[in-house]
Amino acid sequence: MFIAMNRFKIKPGHEQDFIDIWKGRDSYLHTVPGFKEFHLLQGPSNDDFTLFSSHATWESRDDFEAWTKSEAFRKAHASAGSRKDIYMGPPQLECFEVVL
Amino acid sequence: MFIAMNRFKIKPGHEQDFIDIWKGRDSYLHTVPGFKEFHLLQGPSNDDFTLFSSHATWESRDDFEAWTKSEAFRKAHASAGSRKDIYMGPPQLECFEVVL
Repeated sequence: MFIAMNRFKIKPGHEQDFIDIWKGRDSYLHTVPGFKEFHLLQGPSNDDFTLFSSHATWESRDDFEAWTKSEAFRKAHASAGSRKDIYMGPPQLECFEVVL
Repeated sequence: MFIAMNRFKIKPGHEQDFIDIWKGRDSYLHTVPGFKEFHLLQGPSNDDFTLFSSHATWESRDDFEAWTKSEAFRKAHASAGSRKDIYMGPPQLECFEVVL
């Protein structure tokens, strides 16, 4: 099993805007081979930003990588970056293999 | 739902040692109210370390916090730090609320 997490730093006061973007998004993930589960996570806040992370569980890294090259991925990210003003820089992708 | 992740930086060459520590550990978690699921995750490597993360899912933050004050927590961490030589510094706890 494989977990892909994309870490987003959101400017204070824009937390709900960010959640609403994900709420309204059609990710097309449920049609993708190897996809298991998606969640949006809200992490700690400090004076500069609130940390969020997307949290997608896949059967394998290969399934995740195939998705990143697919039409479904392109469509899911077509409107990414439309609210640049709420982000502190680009997201940071971290990928994990489930070892236990 | 709530996810507690503890991030560990492990010195190169000690990845299997670290996994074996977790394999042999009796966490007592399955007896704890609100506990749902545990995984150990292996993340990216660079020249300095390999990132690992423990990944525990709970019904709520309150359940997680109650556990950190319990006898089960104390017992699960009794041997923590016994292999200090394999770590690059202390672990870093990050907690997330599942918002979607």
